[in-house]
Amino acid sequence: MSSMAEHGRIARYFAPLAQAEAGSFSLTDDAAWLTPPAPIVVTTDSVIEGIHVLYGASAEAIAQKLVRRNLSDLAAMGAAPWRYLVNLHTPAHTTDDWFARFAATLAREQQQFGMVLAGGDSTSGGAHVHATLTCFGTAAQVMLRSKAQHGDDVYVSGTIGDAALGLHLLLDTYRTADIAVHDALTARYHLTQPRLALGAALHGIATACLDISDGLLADAGQLARASNVQVQLNRAAIPLSAAARVFLLQHAALEQSILTGGDDYELLFTAPPAQRDRISALANHLALPLTRIGTVAEGEGVLLDGTPAQGGWEHR
Amino acid sequence: MSSMAEHGRIARYFAPLAQAEAGSFSLTDDAAWLTPPAPIVVTTDSVIEGIHVLYGASAEAIAQKLVRRNLSDLAAMGAAPWRYLVNLHTPAHTTDDWFARFAATLAREQQQFGMVLAGGDSTSGGAHVHATLTCFGTAAQVMLRSKAQHGDDVYVSGTIGDAALGLHLLLDTYRTADIAVHDALTARYHLTQPRLALGAALHGIATACLDISDGLLADAGQLARASNVQVQLNRAAIPLSAAARVFLLQHAALEQSILTGGDDYELLFTAPPAQRDRISALANHLALPLTRIGTVAEGEGVLLDGTPAQGGWEHR
Repeated sequence: MSSMAEHGRIARYFAPLAQAEAGSFSLTDDAAWLTPPAPIVVTTDSVIEGIHVLYGASAEAIAQKLVRRNLSDLAAMGAAPWRYLVNLHTPAHTTDDWFARFAATLAREQQQFGMVLAGGDSTSGGAHVHATLTCFGTAAQVMLRSKAQHGDDVYVSGTIGDAALGLHLLLDTYRTADIAVHDALTARYHLTQPRLALGAALHGIATACLDISDGLLADAGQLARASNVQVQLNRAAIPLSAAARVFLLQHAALEQSILTGGDDYELLFTAPPAQRDRISALANHLALPLTRIGTVAEGEGVLLDGTPAQGGWEHR
Repeated sequence: MSSMAEHGRIARYFAPLAQAEAGSFSLTDDAAWLTPPAPIVVTTDSVIEGIHVLYGASAEAIAQKLVRRNLSDLAAMGAAPWRYLVNLHTPAHTTDDWFARFAATLAREQQQFGMVLAGGDSTSGGAHVHATLTCFGTAAQVMLRSKAQHGDDVYVSGTIGDAALGLHLLLDTYRTADIAVHDALTARYHLTQPRLALGAALHGIATACLDISDGLLADAGQLARASNVQVQLNRAAIPLSAAARVFLLQHAALEQSILTGGDDYELLFTAPPAQRDRISALANHLALPLTRIGTVAEGEGVLLDGTPAQGGWEHR
């Protein structure tokens, strides 16, 4: 059910985002009618104030996290962004300014990532923002987390743990006097960078791929379980940013957070050793570190330096 | 982010619903990979405890409303159900029994309507259930609400207002001593019947179509606005159930609720007078009343017996 205020809001703030998709009917009809150019990859994720973003997060922060959490899933499959839907549930007192800023952020994000809004739903009520995005990508082929092979190398993109450390700073559970370190880590919590170019380039190179949203060990455990293999990781090889290294010198107790904290949104992938040169060339081409952090073996679960990993997959 | 408990729950209760779609990867991967057989119609709607269903609604009631609200949108476009996604946000104390009953209801619904679960998202927190469903239909052509023509007849399926009256009974704002009337009206509130067979059959007959979710007058106003026409309705022609007629004799104050209450989920459509015989035959074939309640004229807005309708579309 939509009130007239909601119809007005949709027309004013959201319909402009749907202009490039005729099948969105300017968000005025019961549904969208879409003709995808290829098989579609579909993913959906919510951002709930107080769970996926901090209470009181800005309209911009919520919109950005919403888009990028979903795009990270497309990246993991090697798909290209195409269309999206937004379900938006906002407190009754939410201002027009809030909607304007939320929509302006979506506008920037969809332009940056090559997507078009195609539909959605809007309701008001409750005390917190609860937003869901459903993202359609196109992909002639996909990478799965279940195809890792014995003897494969294990890689991770970028650096690991920054967002988890940034969250500690934002929650004030740990502090640093080093402003540059503070800003670098909190920026990684706030600004997810979906690895779409990497995902697209890994077709034919990677055997298995997923994005790290629940922490490196937990997601490595997912890959191990889905592929029915053991993932053996080398602790010293796990790539940390300069800021994370400085912060860990100050707070050694957070060593484990690096591996179990979430929100990295880097790609974890496996590839046969024969692909090492291509992966190294790809890292140069994308200006993105792709670090070999372990190997795939027979067995199950995740070993960290030879020991079953805490925080990895546990049997139910 | 999904906890291990959530992974277990997905595997146990929801993965069986995705079995018939290989591209769901048994709900274990980052996204689904789908190859629709035709252009797709996509719609998404949420069911929030306390807004779209009463506080304390059962798992079965929430799942059913969730599916059927969305299917009603597909019906309005004349699309056939194909695949769906579910985002489920539940209080932390939600029991396994609740999930089992929610999933069992989805299983029945998807079998009845010919859909397959293809993905979703699950989080816990908050005090109330907040569920979103995204529904994919297939449709070689679609009906829009914007194509009504001057001189068309206006039709409505089924009977109008039962759900709105049922809600009054459930909220105890009005009462009846007639158990049969009580049960008939509250059943219409609880059990939405998406008019999929009708929607599919209206291709080539109807010029415009939408589903009535916000009340007859409001949705007639939507059709008028989208088609840039005036909808002229004949109050006496609007089809009421026997239960609604009895209840209105007891509570004349509710006369207007019939026209402005929501949750009918009947189809409102327009068609040229030349289609009257086919529509009459279709009503017989579907055993569903299709009642001519007005005409389409030049102008704007909704007239009820010649007077601008309260509760219809108002200008912003």
